[in-house]
Amino acid sequence: MKIIVAPDSFKGSISAYDICLAVKEGIIRVHPNAKVCLLPLADGGEGTVDNLVAASNGQLIRANVRGPLNAEVNAVYGVLGDKKTVVIEMAQASGLPLLKDTEKNPMISTSYGTGELIKHALDAGYRQFIIGLGGSATNDGGVGMLRALGVEFYNSSNEVLKDGGASLIDLAFYDDTHLDPRLFESTITIASDVTNPLCGPNGASAVFGPQKGATPKMVHQLDQALFHFSEVVLSKKNINMRDLVGGGAAGGMGAALLAFCNAKLRSGIDVILEEIQFDTILEHTDLLITGEGKLDSQTLSGKVIKGVAIKAKEKKVPVIGLCGTIQLSRKELDELGILAAFSIVPGPCSLEEAFEHSAQWIADRAESIMKLLTLPIVTIKKS
Amino acid sequence: MKIIVAPDSFKGSISAYDICLAVKEGIIRVHPNAKVCLLPLADGGEGTVDNLVAASNGQLIRANVRGPLNAEVNAVYGVLGDKKTVVIEMAQASGLPLLKDTEKNPMISTSYGTGELIKHALDAGYRQFIIGLGGSATNDGGVGMLRALGVEFYNSSNEVLKDGGASLIDLAFYDDTHLDPRLFESTITIASDVTNPLCGPNGASAVFGPQKGATPKMVHQLDQALFHFSEVVLSKKNINMRDLVGGGAAGGMGAALLAFCNAKLRSGIDVILEEIQFDTILEHTDLLITGEGKLDSQTLSGKVIKGVAIKAKEKKVPVIGLCGTIQLSRKELDELGILAAFSIVPGPCSLEEAFEHSAQWIADRAESIMKLLTLPIVTIKKS
Repeated sequence: MKIIVAPDSFKGSISAYDICLAVKEGIIRVHPNAKVCLLPLADGGEGTVDNLVAASNGQLIRANVRGPLNAEVNAVYGVLGDKKTVVIEMAQASGLPLLKDTEKNPMISTSYGTGELIKHALDAGYRQFIIGLGGSATNDGGVGMLRALGVEFYNSSNEVLKDGGASLIDLAFYDDTHLDPRLFESTITIASDVTNPLCGPNGASAVFGPQKGATPKMVHQLDQALFHFSEVVLSKKNINMRDLVGGGAAGGMGAALLAFCNAKLRSGIDVILEEIQFDTILEHTDLLITGEGKLDSQTLSGKVIKGVAIKAKEKKVPVIGLCGTIQLSRKELDELGILAAFSIVPGPCSLEEAFEHSAQWIADRAESIMKLLTLPIVTIKKS
Repeated sequence: MKIIVAPDSFKGSISAYDICLAVKEGIIRVHPNAKVCLLPLADGGEGTVDNLVAASNGQLIRANVRGPLNAEVNAVYGVLGDKKTVVIEMAQASGLPLLKDTEKNPMISTSYGTGELIKHALDAGYRQFIIGLGGSATNDGGVGMLRALGVEFYNSSNEVLKDGGASLIDLAFYDDTHLDPRLFESTITIASDVTNPLCGPNGASAVFGPQKGATPKMVHQLDQALFHFSEVVLSKKNINMRDLVGGGAAGGMGAALLAFCNAKLRSGIDVILEEIQFDTILEHTDLLITGEGKLDSQTLSGKVIKGVAIKAKEKKVPVIGLCGTIQLSRKELDELGILAAFSIVPGPCSLEEAFEHSAQWIADRAESIMKLLTLPIVTIKKS
């Protein structure tokens, strides 16, 4: 028997990988010899590196780089099992979790460290990149990253611009003649489901600025600064960064990668499923167990569960959902391609209790499900 | 496909019968042609009449009789599908639910109405009785019942005793020469799991008196009164009611039925399973779904789920548990003979929410389970 365990995380409660371990535990209690494939999922955001490295038997690399406010951070990126593809989560060097609440300031935070990670990987000889854009603390249009990769930005007094999104309003010109040439030998894929543009009411500053600490006044200033940046780029490169789908991801780093590094934007889960060769893994699989914290209408418009379930359906692999809370109707479960969904909770309880017992309850529920599936077909005949 | 649905009630939330309907609903959504046997369980207490009548396609009979404080009540008893066996819940005429909190008084409450129900059935020609003792408001040693069936009780001034347990202390003698002779043609089975004796610290008054409204002082008086009653009976019948297992049930009515009516005491669930011919029903059954509000350590020492699961195991019918809350370990589930147990709740919630959505959540969970069981065995091979 071969079972794939491919859940998303239960946000705030337990990581996708730990869910995999717990489900496997439950399965093994009933079928000690089952082949269980652990495929913790992610969507390009937090956990992408860990999940892809785990799934592909890759390696984690550490590097000391500059954090969002230039304090040194020890960041991690991954090299997949193919020994060729590097996976970088921008949140590792430039992410919000690295800052205290009082430190959050998208006016001055820089994406420089993420550029350093890319450079570190280029130095090590890698030319294939998956960049996950999620959880950034920055709104600097990816300028920090570009600087780490050799581009320099100047104001009208020929001074190098200060770090951060606010200073972009003073951009007079930039010099990309020393943009790391190795980038032109590289393939860069942005794994992100953010399709927001660089500027405007749906843009980086307006939509994501506030969660990074931007006040309405700052949002306005940052948006104007990015607008100005895009105008400078337009006049030099003839590329309008404001027209790029997903340009607004990661405070505008999406636009920088697309416009300067010839990156391609792809849906996070699609990238991940492709990297782990999901279609091949699905062969000869008896059951796929997926899930997330809440199976609800957001799941329907979400990418992870749907991405997995759709591929499983194509290969006629039945899909079972495990979650904290089920809020989907039968019809919606059918639409998603999920045969049946189960909450892991063993009774009425608080959210805190559920968080506290996640791993245990996941294992127990997986076990219960496996036990049901031991019932011999000779007794369960389709009527 | 044949599925038996044999749950206990979820106390305070939903009756065993309504659970049956909800589970059937869930099953039918997946297997419209499945044969689903509804066997709502009970243990001799509340619901026994309804459940047995429903399970056997019997009939409900109504009779106006005296309530615990002599106010008239319209009580119900059942005649089973065999058209021979009568099922009487003493709570129908003499039960606590019939009284307001302020009315509860085991010193004066009478079991007379229960005797009237027996008489009503005797009048109609019935000679086989199952008497469920549960939820009584009385502590009168079954004396009220006996009076309705022809026995009279006197004090030393030759006056008929007043109703209720307290007055038994004044019992000088009784006259059972007019005890309804049809009782001697009858078979009376007490369906009860109460094994408490008539008197003493484990007796009717001490253990069950308080929930009927007895203060510690009343408990003492009632216990002494029952003790005295048993002494009078001992001297006349040479039967020591204090030695009878289960004599303390229903405020001592157990003792009266055993000593005066030649009744037999049997475990409630055993009686019920026998009456519905459970062993026969189990033939050719693919799955049994049972459950109760809380599957916990009390379930292990309880009778209903265990009784059902044990018989199912003997017939090699797999048992699945559905409940509000699971608090049993795998080992304990194995011990009970339950393959897997599932809570019906779809996520963290309050008890009130669970109560409110019981029927819907039961149907949904049953459906999920049925969907799992549609997975063809060719893909789920035992490894």
